[in-house]
Amino acid sequence: MKTTLTTKLQQELHHKISGKTKPPGSLGRLEDIAMTVGLIQGSISPSINFPHIIVFAGDHGIAATGLVNPYPQSVTAQMVLNFIHGGAAINVFCRQHGIQLLVVDAGVNYEFDESVTRSSLFVDAKIGYGTRNYLEETALTSQQVNAAIAKGKEIVAKVHSTGCNCIGFGEMGIGNTSSASLIMAASMGLPVEACVGKGTGANQEQMDLKIKTLQEAFNRRAPLMNHPLSALEILSNFGGYEVAMMVGAYLEASRLKMVTLVDGFISTAAFMIAYSMDPRIMMNSFFAHTSEEQGHEKMLKYLRAKPLLNLHMRLGEGTGAALAIPIIQSAVNFLNEMASFESAGVDNKN
Amino acid sequence: MKTTLTTKLQQELHHKISGKTKPPGSLGRLEDIAMTVGLIQGSISPSINFPHIIVFAGDHGIAATGLVNPYPQSVTAQMVLNFIHGGAAINVFCRQHGIQLLVVDAGVNYEFDESVTRSSLFVDAKIGYGTRNYLEETALTSQQVNAAIAKGKEIVAKVHSTGCNCIGFGEMGIGNTSSASLIMAASMGLPVEACVGKGTGANQEQMDLKIKTLQEAFNRRAPLMNHPLSALEILSNFGGYEVAMMVGAYLEASRLKMVTLVDGFISTAAFMIAYSMDPRIMMNSFFAHTSEEQGHEKMLKYLRAKPLLNLHMRLGEGTGAALAIPIIQSAVNFLNEMASFESAGVDNKN
Repeated sequence: MKTTLTTKLQQELHHKISGKTKPPGSLGRLEDIAMTVGLIQGSISPSINFPHIIVFAGDHGIAATGLVNPYPQSVTAQMVLNFIHGGAAINVFCRQHGIQLLVVDAGVNYEFDESVTRSSLFVDAKIGYGTRNYLEETALTSQQVNAAIAKGKEIVAKVHSTGCNCIGFGEMGIGNTSSASLIMAASMGLPVEACVGKGTGANQEQMDLKIKTLQEAFNRRAPLMNHPLSALEILSNFGGYEVAMMVGAYLEASRLKMVTLVDGFISTAAFMIAYSMDPRIMMNSFFAHTSEEQGHEKMLKYLRAKPLLNLHMRLGEGTGAALAIPIIQSAVNFLNEMASFESAGVDNKN
Repeated sequence: MKTTLTTKLQQELHHKISGKTKPPGSLGRLEDIAMTVGLIQGSISPSINFPHIIVFAGDHGIAATGLVNPYPQSVTAQMVLNFIHGGAAINVFCRQHGIQLLVVDAGVNYEFDESVTRSSLFVDAKIGYGTRNYLEETALTSQQVNAAIAKGKEIVAKVHSTGCNCIGFGEMGIGNTSSASLIMAASMGLPVEACVGKGTGANQEQMDLKIKTLQEAFNRRAPLMNHPLSALEILSNFGGYEVAMMVGAYLEASRLKMVTLVDGFISTAAFMIAYSMDPRIMMNSFFAHTSEEQGHEKMLKYLRAKPLLNLHMRLGEGTGAALAIPIIQSAVNFLNEMASFESAGVDNKN
């Protein structure tokens, strides 16, 4: 029954797209996007309402060691302040495109004062003050993982209840490309080295140290993990609060049939975990861009994802997602606003 | 002296970009765009003011033969009406992004009535009622070519005088991918076959007839042309009114230091002609997207152009340019609006 309905809707969408005053197929990927958004929303006249970007922020025990990142851990909290004050790249792009930004303290190692917590952009979902160092022990307990996933779901459900049906997820956390690399290695069964990139801008010496450190972490933790690895175990060993919360966010956005934008390397690592828990999240997700962080392209290939943009960015914060939302909007707009051959009195080809 | 100034400005722009609260280089191509727009405008705080898309429309003698296109020639005029009534794809994207659209009758084979000519979107620049059939004679006289180029310059100068500093050019004209293919073959010295694509959606039989027809046109006209071929001679033999007008438009936009967006296959063919007349037009131009029309990628490679988008579109009308303008705007916005490490109190890396 459902298949038939979907097929009928697909046919109706196809018919509507074909009738537009343009050669068939000439809007390329916009036509596929229009079809997909129509199917997600079960409508031949879909709409993008109150798009949001949610930036999940959290700290990582490994970052305090200075072994994996050129920036001090304090930058995570400082960037949260920057988000709240409107000065970061994601603020700029959200303003440009009328996207509502929310910044979630998932586990930043800092006590924000009222000037931050009172902000309408800020969501207090702190589960801990940074993760533990995975060189020594699991980054998160399984209770913390479960709490973070539940919180991610709760946040998305609340945003959805305000009328939002389009959402992108970003992250901020010094050390979280390392977390994502280890998640990628564990999820895809790849050598650690193949999953590590420059992150936020390491030089070669720092890169070598980063690879060595992450290899060591992996070697220490892998024998202690149950096999086959479960999503929760990978998150517990190598995750961050912000990564686990994003996993919950993807799952809930899918359940609520929200058009979802996947950003870069870290966001895609979280997506991989969520995907292993529920593959249906692929159906409502668009991959915003290809990150310059090496490893991202491998994950995208693994997921058979075709990103919308490639601007050689590697900033995180959801910046790729924010730049891709107007592309989704363009697809929805042509579907709703363009004239048909019939209505415009334009001759169609024979 | 000028070199020194440029270098100083480059340094200042580099310094400003480096100070932004993000890892160096992490905004990828947006950083290059910000630099380029700054250099075009001679400012570390550039701006995009009143962006415009100008669609040049014209008919082609060859189209009346039915040998190269599945759509009847009447569609050019019908699409002009569609533009004026707001129902085409380019209308949708211009509305979405606050871009002013103008539609220029460069040489449509139709007498528009007052309901069209009174529209604020319409520019009457008609030089003729479609070109001649290049199977028989030159498509345009050299007087017509010169008049079209002059008119293109005049239109851009007028738009610039309203405060616009960012412009994209699109086109509409049944048969103009054929014109562009012949221009490409003549400009690049390639076999006609290598320059012909599906255009607005021909099937294989139509494609074969199109290639045969264009090959014949080329074979008939080439021996009559002076060698080496001049830009004006190529335009005269194979051009369209809208293509020649676009050549003038590129030249004037460059002279006025306007940020210029090059759209797809036909727009790039016109760009190639303008580039051969004045290579400086490269300095203020961005290539919006890679068209699905085969041949476009070859021209882009020849020009060493790296398009911003690849959404597999092949519609024309300036639709690719319209979708790329927000990317340019994002680059300018981050340069102007993002906080610096210093102003935001964010620790920079050591």
